[in-house]
Amino acid sequence: MFKREITLRTEIDDFIQSCSVVRIGMISDSEPYIVPLNFVYLDGCIWFHCALDGRKTSTFRSGDLVCMEFDEMSGVDVKKQTTYYTSVIAWGIPGFVTDKFLAKRVLKELCIKYLKEETEITESMLQRTGVVKVSINKITGKERLP
Amino acid sequence: MFKREITLRTEIDDFIQSCSVVRIGMISDSEPYIVPLNFVYLDGCIWFHCALDGRKTSTFRSGDLVCMEFDEMSGVDVKKQTTYYTSVIAWGIPGFVTDKFLAKRVLKELCIKYLKEETEITESMLQRTGVVKVSINKITGKERLP
Repeated sequence: MFKREITLRTEIDDFIQSCSVVRIGMISDSEPYIVPLNFVYLDGCIWFHCALDGRKTSTFRSGDLVCMEFDEMSGVDVKKQTTYYTSVIAWGIPGFVTDKFLAKRVLKELCIKYLKEETEITESMLQRTGVVKVSINKITGKERLP
Repeated sequence: MFKREITLRTEIDDFIQSCSVVRIGMISDSEPYIVPLNFVYLDGCIWFHCALDGRKTSTFRSGDLVCMEFDEMSGVDVKKQTTYYTSVIAWGIPGFVTDKFLAKRVLKELCIKYLKEETEITESMLQRTGVVKVSINKITGKERLP
């Protein structure tokens, strides 16, 4: 166990649920690349939507491993000269969701999380939006709190 | 020019200055890996401190390219069903600072930024802290604002 490691998976899960942004790290054209995305955490997987083409979409289509990073900075302690934070890093293989009902469910959940309302997901929305699922292969969390 | 690209470098620079966290993306053991770090932006370079060993430190020592991501989410527009954000991504090669005076200057600037006070940097602090500089090779910014 590393110093400051979060050992309870439920604590890690609750933290991910509380986050509004995931930073996705990937290897694109042999270079590290990060994009910040909105997401939902459902059934133990990370789900987000993206355009149907572009740099990140190509990487998601390649089926290569991505890193997902969640963090929250909770201030500094001037006396101890330290920063308080929680940070979770997970890895998994992205895959496009081809099941329309599932894609619709994910988009609905994204609307509830970010727009705070139920939204009708139309056929046209579904057709122009990629929905990606990342199952988590490995996950670690650490924190330093007051 | 991409849709929503920030074309003014001064605007990108001001945005980086306003951020309190940089997420560093790297390739570590052939996997993408992200760490969130405190940083200062001085002389057109990104500077941060780290432990003298560990997974990220090994990658910084390897001299391989890292990706640096800065973002700010500024709310959603429910009617337009969109998220407002600013996002800057930069790439560069990390290198450890061996010049003691320079390392001291960076640590002092980090203290001013995060602790909001001038701090005496002792010889012992310098000896147990790695100071890393990343010169920026490539940088892009985009935003969607109300």
